[in-house]
Amino acid sequence: MDNKKKAVTQDKLVALCKSRGFIFPGSEIYGGFANTWDFGPVGVELKNNIKRSWWKRFVQESPDTYGIDAAILMNPRVWEASGHVASFGDPKMDCKNCKQRFRADTLIEAHSKGKVAAEAMTNEEMEKYIEEHDVKCPHCGVRNWTPIRKFNPMFVTSRGTLESDADKVYLRPETCQGEYVNFLNVQRTARAKVPFAIAQIGKSFRNEITPGNFLFRTVEFEQMELQRFCKESDSMDIYSEYKEKALKYIEDLGLKKENLRFHDHDKLAHYAKAACDIQFLFPMGWQELNGIHHRGTWDLSRHQEYSGKAMTYIDPFTGEKFIPNVIEYSIGADRLTFALMCEAYEEETLANGETRVVMHFHPAIAPYKVGILPLQKQQSEKAKEVYAKLSKKFMCDYDEAGSIGKRYRRQDEIGTPFCVTVDFDTLNDDTVTVRDRDSMEQIRLKIDELAAYIEKSLEF
Amino acid sequence: MDNKKKAVTQDKLVALCKSRGFIFPGSEIYGGFANTWDFGPVGVELKNNIKRSWWKRFVQESPDTYGIDAAILMNPRVWEASGHVASFGDPKMDCKNCKQRFRADTLIEAHSKGKVAAEAMTNEEMEKYIEEHDVKCPHCGVRNWTPIRKFNPMFVTSRGTLESDADKVYLRPETCQGEYVNFLNVQRTARAKVPFAIAQIGKSFRNEITPGNFLFRTVEFEQMELQRFCKESDSMDIYSEYKEKALKYIEDLGLKKENLRFHDHDKLAHYAKAACDIQFLFPMGWQELNGIHHRGTWDLSRHQEYSGKAMTYIDPFTGEKFIPNVIEYSIGADRLTFALMCEAYEEETLANGETRVVMHFHPAIAPYKVGILPLQKQQSEKAKEVYAKLSKKFMCDYDEAGSIGKRYRRQDEIGTPFCVTVDFDTLNDDTVTVRDRDSMEQIRLKIDELAAYIEKSLEF
Repeated sequence: MDNKKKAVTQDKLVALCKSRGFIFPGSEIYGGFANTWDFGPVGVELKNNIKRSWWKRFVQESPDTYGIDAAILMNPRVWEASGHVASFGDPKMDCKNCKQRFRADTLIEAHSKGKVAAEAMTNEEMEKYIEEHDVKCPHCGVRNWTPIRKFNPMFVTSRGTLESDADKVYLRPETCQGEYVNFLNVQRTARAKVPFAIAQIGKSFRNEITPGNFLFRTVEFEQMELQRFCKESDSMDIYSEYKEKALKYIEDLGLKKENLRFHDHDKLAHYAKAACDIQFLFPMGWQELNGIHHRGTWDLSRHQEYSGKAMTYIDPFTGEKFIPNVIEYSIGADRLTFALMCEAYEEETLANGETRVVMHFHPAIAPYKVGILPLQKQQSEKAKEVYAKLSKKFMCDYDEAGSIGKRYRRQDEIGTPFCVTVDFDTLNDDTVTVRDRDSMEQIRLKIDELAAYIEKSLEF
Repeated sequence: MDNKKKAVTQDKLVALCKSRGFIFPGSEIYGGFANTWDFGPVGVELKNNIKRSWWKRFVQESPDTYGIDAAILMNPRVWEASGHVASFGDPKMDCKNCKQRFRADTLIEAHSKGKVAAEAMTNEEMEKYIEEHDVKCPHCGVRNWTPIRKFNPMFVTSRGTLESDADKVYLRPETCQGEYVNFLNVQRTARAKVPFAIAQIGKSFRNEITPGNFLFRTVEFEQMELQRFCKESDSMDIYSEYKEKALKYIEDLGLKKENLRFHDHDKLAHYAKAACDIQFLFPMGWQELNGIHHRGTWDLSRHQEYSGKAMTYIDPFTGEKFIPNVIEYSIGADRLTFALMCEAYEEETLANGETRVVMHFHPAIAPYKVGILPLQKQQSEKAKEVYAKLSKKFMCDYDEAGSIGKRYRRQDEIGTPFCVTVDFDTLNDDTVTVRDRDSMEQIRLKIDELAAYIEKSLEF
């Protein structure tokens, strides 16, 4: 339609998030901190609903997938086994002139306007490219670089309640190691048969340069991921299956096909057999939203080597004993929240010339399911009864301040799918007006019919 | 009843948790790590359900309470303002003989078998007590102590992606600072009127000596807490109100009155006007389960001082401008999980002399709501249809291995309130047997009636 436009920019979104209580800069009264973000009253519901939708789809409704919630602090040997202590990190260069540090691959991608895929280049190739193309420091404009070095982005702390015990402890840079170290425990207690998956939602931390793309890359982030353990002969089929499942999940949540694409990796980790991302068209361009990786037997083999515990599975039918292959499917909860907000955002010009901003969230993830609005103060008491009744089942908002039009706009901006207006007639016949966020159409329902009407819309 | 006994010990519970997939030692294949625990497939559902029950009660159904989810990593100035950098910590003593470190208050409480409340003693009083009562090192049996020193239990890491920027960063030791620094943001965006509360569920970290009481005290733990901002004149009423609300919540979840007691603090922080715990009778004795604290204007005043931002509220009716008082209500999600498992555990001697172990969880928090069991393999297909249908709504378990009696026992041990048996008759008339976990009584229901029947039991 002519009068509707997608006009989301990162600036508009960040401003809406701040003014409507979705997301605030972390530690804002102290000038913020390291691109951290705090979810406000509206945002925490959105993000929790997204996490629940993922868990429902991939754990609750997936009979051979088992959830876990592993500790963030793990035995440091885990990160030796995983390879993170020895070789994790991004290629960094320092500008000798102004002392700022940059990622070499990011410099090249920015310089080539995304045409050169630096992720596939070696350090030597990147250094050569930077020299040949005269890539200067974006901060001071001089080209006077150090060689590329790896900077390990694991946050390091120390346990040390005894001074003699001041060992390094890492904040986990990825959640999936929780699944690998619990492979035997879960398989045994769930009596799980290969193929099966272990799933987890939890925070990870990476001490990296964050380019300020809002929730896209932050030092503290939440992952939703599962590791599927399988026979090698089944592994490529399962890899393909999860590409489709991952795509279907985000499409069902509302991301449009035209804003999504698969991106197969050119450069694979030495142990990987296949890897791809699904990219989303963010305001700053196409970027990774989630990944599906065929990790072979790398992870379990390494843990077997480092822990001395046999990470093997015995096929109950054939007696065959083997270390399973792993297919990993991982999506960032913050990144997905960002993508869903971009997709949901719409500015619409109304017949009266006013602009309404609407967040078209799927009702299942909308922060509030219903806004309850007494038309006049006289209906406040009745409206509060409706609120008390519905809030047993759903997150509801209650608003009696300002004109009904203004209150509708506020609910539109936080994506509330239904507004229930309590008016003079309600006091006589227990009916209310239900207004639909997207169509703005209104119907009249009995109060007793509301819960079922709303519930139906939440199916996901 | 005679044949029922509460016989839970910590050892029994830990063993059940490990064998049934509730909770495993963290990083177990590497010999564990620092008393961390990983929630397995059953435990993660239990803990998530407990967190949801709290959020439902204290956010969803509380119209003047606003949720947030603040970052774990905060601007280090936050911890200067809060006082944690300068004076947070427990009184520690080192044994000069064997070099082990202990908490002085814990030593005294253990030595006096809980009769002396060391929390109310100064360092000097504790040193004197230890000398006069000849309190020896529990590790080597010698009394040769260093003086008492404070050891700051904040985990310290460093941001430092630039070497010149290697500032200290702390893992938050408490979540409530997230509410204080967002007081203005939430008040403004929610247009909240005093009294209102900000609530949060999230992880905190304390680098302390953990005495090995399972989930009771761990270096990484999850808090569920809210901060209620109010006028000073209302503050004591609100303090009392939250004592009652806190008690009602845990009683509604199933903790018995006789295992709960209020414990008013003898020694208050200098800024506090009142403080109390609710204690639960854990296997190791009466211990704090949650706290209700009257914190006065301390927190907001300090943040005003350190940030330079006015942390004031203007009463819309009187125009009065003031820094609100804060009543804090806080409960540990892990600790509550532990308490609820203790309370739910029962060993029952059946008529045939066998022992059944049952976890009598409130259905709202039970990990799985229903176990779906085909009586024979021939009914597997039909049973899987029932599973697919119900798992759209609830966490369900499916089990076709072993005798029906064994399968019932397994479900009892993980606290599944209902078992649905699919048998020969189901194939003809679409009815199933529903067996109640607690009474072991069985009724016959239509498959189409199951969802509503289960749903009703989940009301909380």
